Amino acid sequence: MVSEDGMRAALQAYIDLFNAGDGGGLAALFADDARIEDPVGGAKTVRGRAEIDAFYHRAVQIVERLELSAAIRASYGRFAAMAFEIQMRHDERVIRVIDVMEFNAAGEIVEMKAYHGPGDVL
Amino acid sequence: MVSEDGMRAALQAYIDLFNAGDGGGLAALFADDARIEDPVGGAKTVRGRAEIDAFYHRAVQIVERLELSAAIRASYGRFAAMAFEIQMRHDERVIRVIDVMEFNAAGEIVEMKAYHGPGDVL
Repeated sequence: MVSEDGMRAALQAYIDLFNAGDGGGLAALFADDARIEDPVGGAKTVRGRAEIDAFYHRAVQIVERLELSAAIRASYGRFAAMAFEIQMRHDERVIRVIDVMEFNAAGEIVEMKAYHGPGDVL
Repeated sequence: MVSEDGMRAALQAYIDLFNAGDGGGLAALFADDARIEDPVGGAKTVRGRAEIDAFYHRAVQIVERLELSAAIRASYGRFAAMAFEIQMRHDERVIRVIDVMEFNAAGEIVEMKAYHGPGDVL
Protein backbone atom coordinates (compact mmCIF):
# COMPACT_ATOMS: atom_id res chain seq x y z
CA MET A 1 0.00 0.00 0.00
CA VAL A 2 1.28 3.45 -0.87
CA SER A 3 1.88 5.58 2.23
CA GLU A 4 0.90 9.17 2.82
CA ASP A 5 4.60 10.07 3.01
CA GLY A 6 5.22 8.20 -0.24
CA MET A 7 2.53 10.18 -2.05
CA ARG A 8 3.87 13.49 -0.71
CA ALA A 9 7.37 12.51 -1.82
CA ALA A 10 6.13 11.65 -5.31
CA LEU A 11 4.42 15.04 -5.70
CA GLN A 12 7.52 16.86 -4.46
CA ALA A 13 9.58 14.78 -6.93
CA TYR A 14 7.18 15.88 -9.69
CA ILE A 15 8.04 19.53 -8.90
CA ASP A 16 11.76 18.85 -8.58
CA LEU A 17 12.01 16.76 -11.77
CA PHE A 18 10.27 19.51 -13.76
CA ASN A 19 12.75 22.03 -12.37
CA ALA A 20 15.61 19.70 -13.35
CA GLY A 21 14.19 19.37 -16.88
CA ASP A 22 14.00 15.58 -16.47
CA GLY A 23 11.15 14.40 -18.70
CA GLY A 24 12.17 10.76 -18.37
CA GLY A 25 12.12 11.00 -14.60
CA LEU A 26 8.66 12.56 -14.66
CA ALA A 27 7.27 9.86 -16.95
CA ALA A 28 8.77 7.18 -14.68
CA LEU A 29 6.54 8.36 -11.80
CA PHE A 30 3.55 6.99 -13.76
CA ALA A 31 2.24 3.45 -14.19
CA ASP A 32 2.37 2.11 -17.76
CA ASP A 33 -1.43 2.32 -18.10
CA ALA A 34 -1.86 5.71 -16.42
CA ARG A 35 -4.15 8.50 -17.64
CA ILE A 36 -3.51 12.25 -17.75
CA GLU A 37 -6.21 14.90 -18.20
CA ASP A 38 -4.45 18.29 -18.55
CA PRO A 39 -6.32 20.56 -18.49
CA VAL A 40 -9.51 19.00 -17.12
CA GLY A 41 -12.27 19.48 -19.68
CA GLY A 42 -9.95 20.81 -22.34
CA ALA A 43 -7.74 18.18 -23.90
CA LYS A 44 -7.69 14.64 -25.21
CA THR A 45 -6.70 12.26 -22.40
CA VAL A 46 -3.05 11.14 -22.47
CA ARG A 47 -3.04 7.40 -21.89
CA GLY A 48 -0.36 4.73 -21.69
CA ARG A 49 3.42 4.57 -21.66
CA ALA A 50 4.20 5.97 -25.12
CA GLU A 51 1.86 8.95 -24.77
CA ILE A 52 3.04 9.72 -21.22
CA ASP A 53 6.70 9.62 -22.27
CA ALA A 54 5.99 11.98 -25.17
CA PHE A 55 3.90 14.29 -22.98
CA TYR A 56 6.65 14.87 -20.41
CA HIS A 57 9.51 15.07 -22.85
CA ARG A 58 7.61 17.88 -24.55
CA ALA A 59 6.48 19.45 -21.26
CA VAL A 60 10.00 20.02 -19.95
CA GLN A 61 10.84 21.84 -23.17
CA ILE A 62 8.05 24.40 -22.75
CA VAL A 63 8.08 24.78 -18.94
CA GLU A 64 10.68 26.98 -17.27
CA ARG A 65 9.81 26.26 -13.67
CA LEU A 66 7.16 24.92 -11.27
CA GLU A 67 6.64 26.45 -7.85
CA LEU A 68 4.34 25.16 -5.11
CA SER A 69 1.69 27.70 -4.05
CA ALA A 70 0.97 25.86 -0.78
CA ALA A 71 1.94 22.65 1.00
CA ILE A 72 1.13 19.35 -0.73
CA ARG A 73 -2.10 17.78 0.52
CA ALA A 74 -2.55 14.00 0.91
CA SER A 75 -5.71 12.01 1.73
CA TYR A 76 -6.91 8.96 3.66
CA GLY A 77 -6.86 6.96 0.42
CA ARG A 78 -4.69 6.74 -2.68
CA PHE A 79 -4.96 10.41 -3.68
CA ALA A 80 -2.83 13.50 -3.15
CA ALA A 81 -3.12 17.05 -4.51
CA MET A 82 -1.10 20.23 -4.83
CA ALA A 83 -1.51 23.85 -5.92
CA PHE A 84 1.36 25.31 -7.93
CA GLU A 85 2.27 27.81 -10.62
CA ILE A 86 3.93 27.07 -13.94
CA GLN A 87 6.34 29.62 -15.39
CA MET A 88 6.39 28.99 -19.13
CA ARG A 89 9.72 29.15 -20.95
CA HIS A 90 9.07 31.06 -24.16
CA ASP A 91 6.90 33.91 -22.95
CA GLU A 92 5.99 35.66 -19.72
CA ARG A 93 2.97 33.51 -19.01
CA VAL A 94 2.28 31.98 -15.61
CA ILE A 95 -0.40 29.28 -15.27
CA ARG A 96 -2.01 28.60 -11.89
CA VAL A 97 -2.80 24.90 -11.46
CA ILE A 98 -4.10 22.32 -8.99
CA ASP A 99 -3.08 18.74 -9.77
CA VAL A 100 -4.82 15.73 -8.24
CA MET A 101 -2.92 12.43 -8.50
CA GLU A 102 -4.19 8.89 -7.86
CA PHE A 103 -1.68 6.17 -6.95
CA ASN A 104 -1.66 2.37 -7.19
CA ALA A 105 -0.48 0.08 -4.39
CA ALA A 106 3.06 0.15 -5.82
CA GLY A 107 3.22 3.94 -5.42
CA GLU A 108 2.96 4.70 -9.14
CA ILE A 109 0.65 7.47 -10.38
CA VAL A 110 -2.30 5.95 -12.25
CA GLU A 111 -4.22 9.18 -12.92
CA MET A 112 -3.35 12.87 -13.00
CA LYS A 113 -5.96 15.60 -13.40
CA ALA A 114 -4.79 19.20 -13.86
CA TYR A 115 -7.32 21.89 -12.95
CA HIS A 116 -6.74 25.27 -14.63
CA GLY A 117 -9.00 27.42 -16.76
CA PRO A 118 -8.54 30.32 -19.18
CA GLY A 119 -8.57 32.72 -16.25
CA ASP A 120 -5.68 30.91 -14.60
CA VAL A 121 -3.28 32.02 -17.34
CA LEU A 122 -1.66 35.25 -16.17
CA MET B 1 -23.81 26.16 -18.93
CA VAL B 2 -21.95 27.24 -15.81
CA SER B 3 -19.25 29.80 -16.55
CA GLU B 4 -15.68 29.87 -15.33
CA ASP B 5 -16.46 33.08 -13.45
CA GLY B 6 -19.56 31.46 -11.95
CA MET B 7 -17.52 28.55 -10.61
CA ARG B 8 -14.89 30.88 -9.13
CA ALA B 9 -17.63 32.95 -7.48
CA ALA B 10 -19.20 29.81 -5.98
CA LEU B 11 -15.89 28.71 -4.45
CA GLN B 12 -15.27 32.19 -3.05
CA ALA B 13 -18.82 32.14 -1.65
CA TYR B 14 -18.01 28.78 -0.02
CA ILE B 15 -15.12 30.45 1.86
CA ASP B 16 -17.14 33.55 2.74
CA LEU B 17 -20.21 31.61 3.92
CA PHE B 18 -18.05 29.48 6.22
CA ASN B 19 -16.54 32.66 7.67
CA ALA B 20 -20.04 34.05 8.18
CA GLY B 21 -21.13 30.84 9.94
CA ASP B 22 -23.92 30.36 7.39
CA GLY B 23 -24.54 26.61 7.17
CA GLY B 24 -27.79 27.09 5.27
CA GLY B 25 -26.06 29.24 2.68
CA LEU B 26 -23.33 26.64 2.24
CA ALA B 27 -25.83 23.81 1.77
CA ALA B 28 -27.71 25.94 -0.78
CA LEU B 29 -24.66 25.95 -3.06
CA PHE B 30 -25.26 22.22 -3.66
CA ALA B 31 -27.73 20.39 -5.88
CA ASP B 32 -30.29 18.25 -4.05
CA ASP B 33 -28.61 15.03 -5.23
CA ALA B 34 -25.02 16.14 -4.66
CA ARG B 35 -22.26 13.99 -3.11
CA ILE B 36 -19.56 15.03 -0.63
CA GLU B 37 -16.45 12.97 0.12
CA ASP B 38 -14.62 14.68 3.03
CA PRO B 39 -11.94 13.53 3.53
CA VAL B 40 -11.28 11.52 0.37
CA GLY B 41 -10.72 7.89 1.38
CA GLY B 42 -11.70 8.44 4.98
CA ALA B 43 -15.42 8.94 5.46
CA LYS B 44 -18.82 7.73 4.39
CA THR B 45 -20.05 9.77 1.43
CA VAL B 46 -22.55 12.51 2.30
CA ARG B 47 -25.35 12.33 -0.27
CA GLY B 48 -28.58 14.19 -0.85
CA ARG B 49 -30.33 17.23 0.57
CA ALA B 50 -30.92 16.08 4.14
CA GLU B 51 -27.37 14.83 4.66
CA ILE B 52 -25.84 17.92 3.04
CA ASP B 53 -27.92 20.26 5.20
CA ALA B 54 -26.88 18.38 8.34
CA PHE B 55 -23.22 18.30 7.25
CA TYR B 56 -22.91 22.08 6.85
CA HIS B 57 -24.97 23.00 9.86
CA ARG B 58 -22.57 20.92 11.92
CA ALA B 59 -19.48 22.12 10.02
CA VAL B 60 -20.02 25.80 10.81
CA GLN B 61 -20.21 24.89 14.50
CA ILE B 62 -16.77 23.27 14.56
CA VAL B 63 -14.94 25.52 12.06
CA GLU B 64 -13.62 28.90 13.17
CA ARG B 65 -12.37 30.16 9.82
CA LEU B 66 -11.35 29.18 6.28
CA GLU B 67 -8.49 30.95 4.52
CA LEU B 68 -7.45 30.47 0.90
CA SER B 69 -3.84 29.32 0.51
CA ALA B 70 -3.70 30.33 -3.17
CA ALA B 71 -5.99 31.65 -5.89
CA ILE B 72 -8.99 29.54 -6.85
CA ARG B 73 -8.37 27.40 -9.95
CA ALA B 74 -11.06 26.70 -12.58
CA SER B 75 -10.97 24.34 -15.57
CA TYR B 76 -12.13 24.01 -19.18
CA GLY B 77 -15.08 21.93 -17.98
CA ARG B 78 -17.43 21.88 -15.01
CA PHE B 79 -14.76 21.62 -12.31
CA ALA B 80 -12.98 24.09 -10.06
CA ALA B 81 -10.53 23.60 -7.19
CA MET B 82 -8.97 25.51 -4.32
CA ALA B 83 -6.31 25.09 -1.64
CA PHE B 84 -7.17 26.47 1.78
CA GLU B 85 -6.64 26.05 5.50
CA ILE B 86 -9.29 25.36 8.12
CA GLN B 87 -8.86 26.85 11.58
CA MET B 88 -10.90 24.68 13.92
CA ARG B 89 -12.93 26.35 16.65
CA HIS B 90 -12.39 24.29 19.80
CA ASP B 91 -8.67 23.65 19.67
CA GLU B 92 -5.55 25.00 18.00
CA ARG B 93 -5.71 22.65 15.04
CA VAL B 94 -5.29 23.81 11.46
CA ILE B 95 -6.17 21.44 8.59
CA ARG B 96 -4.65 21.97 5.14
CA VAL B 97 -7.13 21.03 2.41
CA ILE B 98 -7.65 21.02 -1.35
CA ASP B 99 -11.30 20.87 -2.44
CA VAL B 100 -12.37 19.89 -5.96
CA MET B 101 -15.95 20.80 -6.90
CA GLU B 102 -17.99 19.63 -9.88
CA PHE B 103 -20.92 21.76 -11.10
CA ASN B 104 -24.07 21.10 -13.07
CA ALA B 105 -25.31 23.29 -15.91
CA ALA B 106 -27.35 25.36 -13.44
CA GLY B 107 -24.22 26.27 -11.49
CA GLU B 108 -24.99 24.05 -8.49
CA ILE B 109 -22.25 21.89 -6.95
CA VAL B 110 -22.95 18.21 -7.66
CA GLU B 111 -19.80 16.76 -6.12
CA MET B 112 -17.21 17.95 -3.61
CA LYS B 113 -14.07 16.01 -2.81
CA ALA B 114 -11.85 17.23 0.05
CA TYR B 115 -8.22 16.10 -0.07
CA HIS B 116 -6.41 16.09 3.29
CA GLY B 117 -4.54 13.37 5.13
CA PRO B 118 -3.39 12.78 8.72
CA GLY B 119 -0.24 14.80 7.99
CA ASP B 120 -2.32 17.80 6.93
CA VAL B 121 -3.56 18.33 10.48
CA LEU B 122 -1.17 20.77 12.16
